[in-house]
Amino acid sequence: MNAAAPNIADSVGAVTPVDVHFDAPLRLKSGATMPQYDLRYETYGTLNAQRSNAILVCHALNASHHVAGWYASDPRDIGWWDNLIGPGKPVDTNRFFVVGVNNLGGCHGSTGPASVNPATGRPWGADFPVVTVDDWVEAQARLATHLGIERFAAVIGGSLGAMQALQWTMTYPDRVGLALVSAGAPKLSAQNIAFNEVARQAITTDPDFHGGNYYEHGVVPRRGLRLARMLGHITYLSDDAMAEKFGRELRGGEFKFGFDVEFEIESYLRYQGDKFSTYFDANTYLRITKALDYFDPAFEHGGNLSAALKGARSRYLVVSFTSDWRFSPARSREIVKALLDNRLNVTYAEIDAPHGHDAFLMDDPRYHALIRATMESLPQ
Amino acid sequence: MNAAAPNIADSVGAVTPVDVHFDAPLRLKSGATMPQYDLRYETYGTLNAQRSNAILVCHALNASHHVAGWYASDPRDIGWWDNLIGPGKPVDTNRFFVVGVNNLGGCHGSTGPASVNPATGRPWGADFPVVTVDDWVEAQARLATHLGIERFAAVIGGSLGAMQALQWTMTYPDRVGLALVSAGAPKLSAQNIAFNEVARQAITTDPDFHGGNYYEHGVVPRRGLRLARMLGHITYLSDDAMAEKFGRELRGGEFKFGFDVEFEIESYLRYQGDKFSTYFDANTYLRITKALDYFDPAFEHGGNLSAALKGARSRYLVVSFTSDWRFSPARSREIVKALLDNRLNVTYAEIDAPHGHDAFLMDDPRYHALIRATMESLPQ
Repeated sequence: MNAAAPNIADSVGAVTPVDVHFDAPLRLKSGATMPQYDLRYETYGTLNAQRSNAILVCHALNASHHVAGWYASDPRDIGWWDNLIGPGKPVDTNRFFVVGVNNLGGCHGSTGPASVNPATGRPWGADFPVVTVDDWVEAQARLATHLGIERFAAVIGGSLGAMQALQWTMTYPDRVGLALVSAGAPKLSAQNIAFNEVARQAITTDPDFHGGNYYEHGVVPRRGLRLARMLGHITYLSDDAMAEKFGRELRGGEFKFGFDVEFEIESYLRYQGDKFSTYFDANTYLRITKALDYFDPAFEHGGNLSAALKGARSRYLVVSFTSDWRFSPARSREIVKALLDNRLNVTYAEIDAPHGHDAFLMDDPRYHALIRATMESLPQ
Repeated sequence: MNAAAPNIADSVGAVTPVDVHFDAPLRLKSGATMPQYDLRYETYGTLNAQRSNAILVCHALNASHHVAGWYASDPRDIGWWDNLIGPGKPVDTNRFFVVGVNNLGGCHGSTGPASVNPATGRPWGADFPVVTVDDWVEAQARLATHLGIERFAAVIGGSLGAMQALQWTMTYPDRVGLALVSAGAPKLSAQNIAFNEVARQAITTDPDFHGGNYYEHGVVPRRGLRLARMLGHITYLSDDAMAEKFGRELRGGEFKFGFDVEFEIESYLRYQGDKFSTYFDANTYLRITKALDYFDPAFEHGGNLSAALKGARSRYLVVSFTSDWRFSPARSREIVKALLDNRLNVTYAEIDAPHGHDAFLMDDPRYHALIRATMESLPQ
């Protein structure tokens, strides 16, 4: 949702999302079953005859299937990773067939808590199950099969998307050529969970939450969503990035000694929170933070990540950013260590970018050059 | 508010708070005036004949005048810095006369937003003015004069208390022998302000806030206070301290795939938030976070902290803690640099404690030994 005007020359151009319905029930990690569901996706480029040039893009918390290009109905609604993906870009759509998908439980077109539960004829609401990274990989794999893709040349993602890319190589080691694991972590820390929990409590204690069934009440827990988003933004930016962007700059040049916006950072956070609360579904937010909390592939291996990766056979590009305090480079190094324990082919880059966690979305030349070189090296 | 049983041997014992009324109006930095006000304080030890052995303790966000000892009515209600202050302790009450005071605008006995506004006969609520560190120093100075203390042997504090100690040496350079500036900062960063702003928005958007006049409605914005406190706790602890204390430990040993407490850290935060929301006043919380945001002695000197400290003449003990990411050691070094620019007598210690910002409250032997040695070196 970038506000810049589209650059037509190296863009995939106007794109159209597609919905696909799956009738086969999906058994989830929680034990619950999705009886049927839709997934919304977009594709860019052309699948080659060998069906060997497909790349799957996994999205993080606030993103979707709309990865590149724009919509004819709204040319300013540019895909969230458009700087990376397009003709001649590091992920070159002249060569690759790129697939973006809105995850199950989302609020951008795929079946989620706001969708109608066929069993009741009313929105799923609180009854929508908790979904996990494993479940998303499973649903994405079904989409791949539907698209005739047996094996992805690469599965790529940042943050929560990186977790999905990593999980793909464990669940379907033969279906992933390379995984780009950018700004990821092998599991959340207690501090990460703590931030998620405050966000969830902000939402669930909003009187308009109604236990998750707010749709029926014609309201939305906007206060809670707004707070969750404000808090999220703090963790996405580094202290330095915030200092450089806002510092202690005053809105009016001098102290006003009141509770209106005083510092620019307050204005920014309120704006981001307000905006987010108008379009994002609170139940989706809750479930995505839970999927983050639950991600821990080592859990079923006594906490041993190397053991969890035993069956992996993909290549890996692991990237971290020095100023990322949400998923610090140390977290990426845990992944690299476990991959090396398994004698896997891994390239690791720690990029000294100042932007914090959000750096994985930025157009950093060293970052993009690395991805470009890696993508160019993929066999076809 | 320590739950441990009191150790009688080295405690100041049962203590009794005292209220003092000030009739002279106090002009605040905002331009507003407090027509009259009460301050609640406690003292430990005995003021000597020369009145030269007094130490003022300035409190941080969630603390009060109850610094050491316990209350006869509740022996488990131990002062917040009892590990530091008492007979034979680093701040030795056999030698020093220690004063703790609840700041103006507080909710532990001094005049604050919940107090009755004499002009209306109703609680001050939203009309209670914004107070600043400068205002607190001024009110504390009046209390000192009331107690017959012209000059403090030391003014000590951690975090927001450190800011008050520092401000004392600028406002009243001749009234402070030594300032202990522990886990402090010369001003908040944009990130610090951002966290405060999320906490404030949690409170002010709680439907029970009623624009700050909730007293009249017989309610309290507990949801907002609870969130503010949960968030605060994340910033007080280091990532490592949280990892060591809670890790990813599960409440029930296995994933439950729901929204009840799953991880121990969630349980801890909810408990802390719930507890806090039963006793702390939301309007006080708002004002204390604003006092933090506004503290910036260099502001009136073109951002030059060295210039702001030009008239200072006290000795300084500046202490920071390696794992403190709220006010990192770099922030303390800014203070030290400005003090050295003025050729002031300053000792700086960076203690490699794992506890994060809360380390200033802990019984770290190196930290306490340093304070002990410094206090012993004070002339009397």
